[in-house]
Amino acid sequence: MTQEHNVTHAAGTALPSSSPMVRQTNLSLVLRHLRDHASQSRADIAETTGLHRATVSNLVSELLDRQLVREIGTEHVGAIGRPRRPLALHGAHVGALGLEINVDYISVHGSDLSGRVLVERRVGFDTIAAGPDRALRMLSQMALDAVEAMKRAEAVPAGLGVALPGLVDVARGVVTFAPNLGWRDLPLAARLSAALSPWSVPVSVDNDANLAAVAEHTSGVAAGTSHLVYLTGEVGVGGGIFVDGKLLRGADGFAGEVGHLPVDPGGALCGCGRYGCWETKVGLAALVRMAMPDQVYQPADLPVSDPEERATEIARGLAAGDPQMMDAVAQVGRWLGLGGSILANLFNPRVIVVGGYFATLAEWLLPHAQAELERLVVARSANHCRFIASDLGFGAASRGAASMVVNRLIDHPTMIMDPLPRLSPI
Amino acid sequence: MTQEHNVTHAAGTALPSSSPMVRQTNLSLVLRHLRDHASQSRADIAETTGLHRATVSNLVSELLDRQLVREIGTEHVGAIGRPRRPLALHGAHVGALGLEINVDYISVHGSDLSGRVLVERRVGFDTIAAGPDRALRMLSQMALDAVEAMKRAEAVPAGLGVALPGLVDVARGVVTFAPNLGWRDLPLAARLSAALSPWSVPVSVDNDANLAAVAEHTSGVAAGTSHLVYLTGEVGVGGGIFVDGKLLRGADGFAGEVGHLPVDPGGALCGCGRYGCWETKVGLAALVRMAMPDQVYQPADLPVSDPEERATEIARGLAAGDPQMMDAVAQVGRWLGLGGSILANLFNPRVIVVGGYFATLAEWLLPHAQAELERLVVARSANHCRFIASDLGFGAASRGAASMVVNRLIDHPTMIMDPLPRLSPI
Repeated sequence: MTQEHNVTHAAGTALPSSSPMVRQTNLSLVLRHLRDHASQSRADIAETTGLHRATVSNLVSELLDRQLVREIGTEHVGAIGRPRRPLALHGAHVGALGLEINVDYISVHGSDLSGRVLVERRVGFDTIAAGPDRALRMLSQMALDAVEAMKRAEAVPAGLGVALPGLVDVARGVVTFAPNLGWRDLPLAARLSAALSPWSVPVSVDNDANLAAVAEHTSGVAAGTSHLVYLTGEVGVGGGIFVDGKLLRGADGFAGEVGHLPVDPGGALCGCGRYGCWETKVGLAALVRMAMPDQVYQPADLPVSDPEERATEIARGLAAGDPQMMDAVAQVGRWLGLGGSILANLFNPRVIVVGGYFATLAEWLLPHAQAELERLVVARSANHCRFIASDLGFGAASRGAASMVVNRLIDHPTMIMDPLPRLSPI
Repeated sequence: MTQEHNVTHAAGTALPSSSPMVRQTNLSLVLRHLRDHASQSRADIAETTGLHRATVSNLVSELLDRQLVREIGTEHVGAIGRPRRPLALHGAHVGALGLEINVDYISVHGSDLSGRVLVERRVGFDTIAAGPDRALRMLSQMALDAVEAMKRAEAVPAGLGVALPGLVDVARGVVTFAPNLGWRDLPLAARLSAALSPWSVPVSVDNDANLAAVAEHTSGVAAGTSHLVYLTGEVGVGGGIFVDGKLLRGADGFAGEVGHLPVDPGGALCGCGRYGCWETKVGLAALVRMAMPDQVYQPADLPVSDPEERATEIARGLAAGDPQMMDAVAQVGRWLGLGGSILANLFNPRVIVVGGYFATLAEWLLPHAQAELERLVVARSANHCRFIASDLGFGAASRGAASMVVNRLIDHPTMIMDPLPRLSPI
């Protein structure tokens, strides 16, 4: 199964090959194939895509001209004696820029079309204290700095994606509600575009967990898994869900909201005003409260506490065998497994990849979570769903934002082809 | 958006039009389009599918020859003066047979390719007492009776689907675990095929809630809604989920298991051995226990209690304003809303269609459920998810089984075309 395969119909046999729709569709098919598979010959591409060999050769020639693909390795000779030069995605001159703005940091990740990392940076930033205006200035400054860095690597960003923790109207680029940032109804894409002027680039905005899930699906420990759930464990708990190789968005783009699943109607008050949300059981605050009860962990100090530092501190305690911490992590692990069983019952994913502090504490947390998942899931014998720790670190969302830009360019390759001058005049 | 759109790549421009793959793909495109849209001209089809008009004309001629489509209504004249004869799905000679076996009944639904109902029947049957062997004999007898009835209507069934409450390995046609029927690891498709011999027909097996969801998506109150959750309220609670117009199956085909979501870890023991499953809150047994506490409702008598009769009895009490019943339905309604909020948070569907006793008691149950859903769902202002009562009645699963057969034939139309003699010899 290829990922993000959103061609929706067969182009038929009678359309002229010059049809712009067919050209875009077929160029995209070839690029997608090279994104999803290691070195492939033209014949491999023809076989898998169902395109005629002559068509593939023409498309590849065009993509080679534009340096969006390249020939790699040495020629090898196929069974019928024809040279089969392996191809790979290239586009070193096409940049994709991802930003993440979160409670206490902004991070940036720039890559070229093939996913080669060109720039990565993270700075501490108190987003709530700054407010939207200063946050926007900081975001645009970091974006422009990254553009300069990418230009030095001879790549021009062709798209910019922003990740943040909250509900996002993806079609309009508006942050509907981001409680942890204190933002509501903020037209982030439009405001950031204005701030970047005169530099003009398509700006998209998406939920951080969705984009981290994209990063996992593209280049994480379970990359390419068609049915994959990603959970981010920080102060809040976010989710991004892949179904049949596609990110699940739902009717309004708000699918995958896992943090406030009601898992214990008699439970504690959540920051959202409801009781017994999953976040009150498995969010970092819940763990800290149990593992380090002498440390006051008030909601008021959440924005400035560094989740990574807290997680590292607890990891040290666990490594030393601290019994209170061991007990706390067991309790949180069981609640993680209970919520995981809800996801497993509903989505039947192959894996649940966990990031954030869940990954930092994976060796202590996941055995409890896995046991509880297996105890609670209905299709017990048949459902081999496994918790796995992410290895992408806290930069998954900005990496995913860049991957999403790459995916969009690959879906609409003429966006990065037609503005270029034709190499051979007709 | 069309439903079940599983063409996965553009066929390109250089494949010869005689390619069997392209022919099947394009025939399927035309049939799917006519299934999903009311009367359409050849020009409409060409425009929407992206196929060339001449290609559409050829495909339609072939489908008219095989009587899989028909021209309807009077000719009307298009803007450029050419006749535009509306077309519709036909296939009156192609039958699709759906069976449902449940705790206390077997039902059958036969239609032609266009969905016209040819036979509908339901008989009481104590499945657990009968055991798998007698149940299989009863299923095959009802199937053969239905085939006779359909033949009298000059339709020959080209596929048979079976719905049942349980986990099904759809690819192998094996019932993995159906606790309410007492079945485990039963190769139902193979055994039913053998029992039907010498009549030979492809047999498929699927979960009842999945198939009821297919019926809702095809012909229910919210037909065509891309993001739709279906819940069946009986003794057990089942779910079928449409994501982007496609039935969600998950990695192993076990997605949509809603009945045993852990919604109250401190709750009552469930028949499955876990505590506080959603079924213990919203299953019919929970309601009867609260609404009619003087009636003993032991698990032992579940198989023979008629859910419809119980629901009707409670509806009479509610209509008469019985305060104990009003209170019971309010409690169950709130738990229905809580589970609904889990589904709304995760899937962000446009509607949650409820069947079974949920539909029978909708006017009393759904206001409570809707209020609780809106209180608990995260994307409150933006998420306009509504509970809606199904109007398909208890026959939704067998109807969905027949729809699934139709969908499969439309995806692979040469299955019903090539065995027929060619009308015009070459």
